[in-house]
Amino acid sequence: MAVKSLFIVCFMSALIQLTLASKARHFKWEVGHIFWSPDCLENVVIGINGQFPGPTIRAKAGDTIVVELTNKLHTEGVVIHWHGIRQFGTPWADGTAAISQCAINPEETFVYRFIVDKPGTYFYHGHYGMQRSAGLYGSLIVDVADGEKEPFHYDGELNMLLSDWWHKDVTEQGLGLSSKPFRWIGEPQSLLINGKGQYNCSLAAHVSNSSLPLCRKLHGHCSPHVLHVIPNKTYRLRIASTTALASINVGIGHHKMVVIEADGNYVEPVTVDNIDIYSGESYSVLITTDQNPSSNYWVSLNVRGRNPSTPPGLTILNYHPNSPSKLPTSPLPVSPAWNDYPKSKAFSNKILARPGSPKPPTKPNRRIFLLNTQNTIDGYTKWAINNISLVLPTTPYLGSIKYRLKNAFDVESPPETFPSDYDVMKPPVNPNSTHGSNVYMFKFNNTVDVILQNANALSADVSEIHPWHLHGHDFWLLGYGEGKFTAADEKKLNLKNPPLRNTAVIFPYGWTALRFVTDNPGVWAFHCHIEPHLHMGMGVVFAEAVHLVKKIPNEALGCGMTAKMLIRP
Amino acid sequence: MAVKSLFIVCFMSALIQLTLASKARHFKWEVGHIFWSPDCLENVVIGINGQFPGPTIRAKAGDTIVVELTNKLHTEGVVIHWHGIRQFGTPWADGTAAISQCAINPEETFVYRFIVDKPGTYFYHGHYGMQRSAGLYGSLIVDVADGEKEPFHYDGELNMLLSDWWHKDVTEQGLGLSSKPFRWIGEPQSLLINGKGQYNCSLAAHVSNSSLPLCRKLHGHCSPHVLHVIPNKTYRLRIASTTALASINVGIGHHKMVVIEADGNYVEPVTVDNIDIYSGESYSVLITTDQNPSSNYWVSLNVRGRNPSTPPGLTILNYHPNSPSKLPTSPLPVSPAWNDYPKSKAFSNKILARPGSPKPPTKPNRRIFLLNTQNTIDGYTKWAINNISLVLPTTPYLGSIKYRLKNAFDVESPPETFPSDYDVMKPPVNPNSTHGSNVYMFKFNNTVDVILQNANALSADVSEIHPWHLHGHDFWLLGYGEGKFTAADEKKLNLKNPPLRNTAVIFPYGWTALRFVTDNPGVWAFHCHIEPHLHMGMGVVFAEAVHLVKKIPNEALGCGMTAKMLIRP
Repeated sequence: MAVKSLFIVCFMSALIQLTLASKARHFKWEVGHIFWSPDCLENVVIGINGQFPGPTIRAKAGDTIVVELTNKLHTEGVVIHWHGIRQFGTPWADGTAAISQCAINPEETFVYRFIVDKPGTYFYHGHYGMQRSAGLYGSLIVDVADGEKEPFHYDGELNMLLSDWWHKDVTEQGLGLSSKPFRWIGEPQSLLINGKGQYNCSLAAHVSNSSLPLCRKLHGHCSPHVLHVIPNKTYRLRIASTTALASINVGIGHHKMVVIEADGNYVEPVTVDNIDIYSGESYSVLITTDQNPSSNYWVSLNVRGRNPSTPPGLTILNYHPNSPSKLPTSPLPVSPAWNDYPKSKAFSNKILARPGSPKPPTKPNRRIFLLNTQNTIDGYTKWAINNISLVLPTTPYLGSIKYRLKNAFDVESPPETFPSDYDVMKPPVNPNSTHGSNVYMFKFNNTVDVILQNANALSADVSEIHPWHLHGHDFWLLGYGEGKFTAADEKKLNLKNPPLRNTAVIFPYGWTALRFVTDNPGVWAFHCHIEPHLHMGMGVVFAEAVHLVKKIPNEALGCGMTAKMLIRP
Repeated sequence: MAVKSLFIVCFMSALIQLTLASKARHFKWEVGHIFWSPDCLENVVIGINGQFPGPTIRAKAGDTIVVELTNKLHTEGVVIHWHGIRQFGTPWADGTAAISQCAINPEETFVYRFIVDKPGTYFYHGHYGMQRSAGLYGSLIVDVADGEKEPFHYDGELNMLLSDWWHKDVTEQGLGLSSKPFRWIGEPQSLLINGKGQYNCSLAAHVSNSSLPLCRKLHGHCSPHVLHVIPNKTYRLRIASTTALASINVGIGHHKMVVIEADGNYVEPVTVDNIDIYSGESYSVLITTDQNPSSNYWVSLNVRGRNPSTPPGLTILNYHPNSPSKLPTSPLPVSPAWNDYPKSKAFSNKILARPGSPKPPTKPNRRIFLLNTQNTIDGYTKWAINNISLVLPTTPYLGSIKYRLKNAFDVESPPETFPSDYDVMKPPVNPNSTHGSNVYMFKFNNTVDVILQNANALSADVSEIHPWHLHGHDFWLLGYGEGKFTAADEKKLNLKNPPLRNTAVIFPYGWTALRFVTDNPGVWAFHCHIEPHLHMGMGVVFAEAVHLVKKIPNEALGCGMTAKMLIRP
C-alpha cells in the first residue's frame, strides 16, 4: 500500500508539474480569400484572419495547441496540416483531406487540438487541392519547455518562412496539370520571404547585372521583410520552406551559417556559406553579426535544381543603427549554379545527428522500395510510385479503415518494390501506369525502411529533385546514393549518426534511404512536397495500427461513406 | 371484397399506364473546371462532361429525371438546382446548398431523382456561391406527355439559353462583393446565346455604329449559335435567361413574336416586337418565317435596366438555303432604351394566363410584405429584406428542421412587414440592418400572398430591377404597381387571369404581388435571381410543413449539425 501511495503521490506531482509547465494555447482562425499583393501585384490569396501569411504560432514543448478553424471560403473545403508535428494520439488532427479527415465545409468550424512535444522550427499549411500554393501557410515555432535549455547559445532570433508565388490562380494551375494536353505551371513569378517579394523589380538592381529596375515602391505589402540585428551578437535564424515547387539556396552576404537544427531535430553543428532547403524542410542556423557594422547585408534566395527564370528573392540583414532602407553596396552573395548537384549532395551529407540523439534500430522488420517515375495514364501526365499514381479516395482513410467500411479505397496491397531490370537512367519503356488509392498497412511498433528510388522522367536525360515528407513521424535519414540502390549500398547506410528528419530529398537518378518505427496509430501521407507533383499523384499512404486509434470526432467524418453509412437519424 | 378487387385492378391499370407513358431518363454527369472560350477569350469555366453550357435535358411530362452528378472540382462543393421544377415529394433534390442539401463534396456523387410533371421551358444551374456565374448551367425542356398535344401549332423548335459573361473569375467577383470597400463586379464583358458570344468584335460592325471591328474568327467556340429555319414555317423559339445580372431585351429583325409560354405555363398569346426577359424567367414565342427568304436576320440581345457597357449579344436567324455565314445587311432590330421602364412594364402586364388555367384562391390566409433595401452592415454593402440580409446557415434547413436540431439557424420569425412610415423613394435613413438566417414557417395548404416592395438603394435616385424566383412552386402574379403598396392597391390585383410564374420582377420604386399555395412540404428559397444580389443577402427562406417530408437521403445530410449530431459509428 505504501508503494502504491508513493506511486500515486509521484504521479500526481508529475501531473501537477506538467499542468504548471505546459499550457493550452487557443487560437480562433478564419480562413478566407483576401486581396493581397505578395509580390506587389494584387492577387486573390488564401489568408487567415485577413492576413498573409497566416499568424505565427509560438508555443513551448508540451503545450497543447487548440486552433478553432472556421472556413470562410465561399465554396471550397479546407484543412490545415501541422507540418512536422507528429500528432501522437490525435491522428484526426493531422489536417490531410481524404486521409485524416473530411475537408472542413464552408462556414464550418473544426477544432485542431494537438500537443507540440518537441521544440523546433515548424510550419503549417493547407493540404487540400493546391491551397498551399494559394497562400495558406504560416510559421509554427516551438521553444523548449520552461526550465529546459537549448543546447546552444544565441542572443536573438530571426525567422524566415520561404515560399514561391504565381500570379495564375491555383484553380487554373490545377486544371492545367489535370488537362490533356498537359499544361505545366511554369516557374514561379517571385520568391517570398515571410510572404513578401518584389515582382518586376529588384532590390539589388544597382549591384547585379539583372535587367530588372530598382524597386521603387517599398511600403506596405511591397516592403521586404527586413531582418533587424545588433552588431556582435549571435542570432538563431529559423528558415522553413513551404514552396510549391522551388528548391532554394539561402545565402547571407559576408556571413557564415552554423546549421544546428533540421526539421525540429538538433544536428551536429556544421558551418556553411549557404544552405540548400527543399520544400517541406526547416533549418535553424546561427549567424554572428561580426561584419562591418556600417553596412547592411543581402539575404538572397536562389532557385536550385531547375533552370531558374525566377529572379532571386531578396531581403536585408539590417545592422543597427543603420537605416533598414540602406541597400547593401556589396554584390549579391554567390549562389551555386542551379545544377551543381554535387554541392547540394555535399550539403545534405553534412547534416548529421547531434551526439546523444536517438539511434535507429539496427535492423528493419520490413523494407519498401519506392520507384519514382513520371508516366502517362490515358494521355494525362502523372507521377507514379511503383507504377501507381495516387488518387485519394472520397472517404478519408482514417474513418474508413477504423470503421472497416468496404470499397472505400483500393484494398490490394501496393507493390513493395519494382522490377529488378528497371533502368532508372532511361525514360520509362512502357510509361503506362495506373491510378490507385492503395495503402501500405503496418503493424504497431515495426521498424520500416523505405528506399526512395529516383529515375528518369518521360523526357530523356531528365530526372528531378523530389523532397519527400512523412506525416506522423520523424525518420532516420540513412543516406543518399547514386543510381539504383543495390545490395552493395547496404553497407553505405549510416546507422551511427543519421539525422532525424521529416523530409528527405531524392537527387536526380539517385536513391535515399530512410528508417522509421510505426509507433503512431493513424493514417499518414508520405509524398513529394512539391505541390503540383502531389497533385499529379506523387505520394503513398501508410496506415499504422488503426484499430488502436481512439474515437474520431464526428466533424472529421461528414463526407463520403462515413457520412453515408454512419448517419442514423 | 368485390369493391376492393376492383380498386386493385384500377390501381394496377393506372400504374401500368403510368409506367408505359412515363419514363426514367438517366444521365451521368461530371461537373468540373474546363478551359473554354465562351466569348472567344479563354477562361476557366465550370462545365459538365467537358462541355459548356451543360447538356440539354429533354424529357416528357411525367418522366423521372435521374442525374448521377459527380463533383470533379478539386476543392469546391457543388449542387444543381432544377429551375422551375417543383420537386413535389423530393424537396432534397431542389439543389440549393445550405437549404435543401449539403453541397456535394469533390469526388462524391449525388443522385438527383425527380419528376418533371409539367411541359415547358426550364433550365438548371449551380446554386452554391456564384457557380452559376462560373458557367454551371444548361437547358431543361419538357415536352407534353405522349398522346397529349400542345395548345398551339408549330413546325419546328429553336432554343436560346441566355447568359452574361465576365472574364474575372467568380472567386474574385465574390470576394470583391464581400469586401470593405465594396468592389462591384461591373457590367458583363459579353452576352452569350447558348454559351457563345464574341468579345471585342461585333458580327454587325458593318451595319451598326459600334466602334468594334467585325468578328473575324468565327469557328469553334467563337462561332455564334445560328438559328436555322426554313421559309414560311412557324417556329417555337424557347428563350430562357440564366444571366448573373443582365436583364435582356430580345429582338429579331423583321419578325414579330407571339408569346405563348412563360416559366412553364401557357399564357394568353400576345404579339410583340421584342421581349424583356429577366434572369430566372423563360418564355416560348412563335415566329413565322415569312420574310424575304434571300436574307438572313439579326437576333439581338440588349441590356435593360442598367446603363449598358456591354455590346449587344448577336446571332443569326438563317433562312434555308442561305449560307449561315451570310451576315444580314439590315440594321440591328430596334431595342428600347435601357431605362424605358414604361415599355418593360407594358410588356410584363401583357403576360396573362391562358383561359382554362388554374385560378388563384380568392383570399390569402396570410400576407407577407417584403421590403427590398440596400444597406450597410459593419460597413459592408448588402441587400436586405425587411432589414434582414440573408446569411445561409451551415446546416441545410431541410435536415435541421426535419430532425428538430437546435441552434441550426435563427429561430425568431422574420418580420412580416416593414414600418408603415418607411419612405421607399428615399435612401434608407438609418441604413444599418442585420444578418439573419430566419425562416418564414408555413402550414400545409395555406394560401400566402407576398407583396414585394421595391425601394431606393443607398444612393439617391437609384432603385434597381430585381427578378424574384420562388423554388418549389409556381405563383400567381397578381400585378405590379408604382410606389408603396397601399390598401387602395388591393382592388388592382388581378384575380381573374393572373399568369402562373416562378419568377417575378419588381420594377424600380414599385411593388409586385404574388399568391401561392403551400402545397409542397419542403424548404424553399425565394430570392432575387441576380447572382451578386443573392450573394449580398437578397433572399428569404420559406419552410412548408417539413414534418410531412419523407426520409432525406444521407448524402444530403453530411455537413454541419446533421453530420455532427446524426453520425453514430
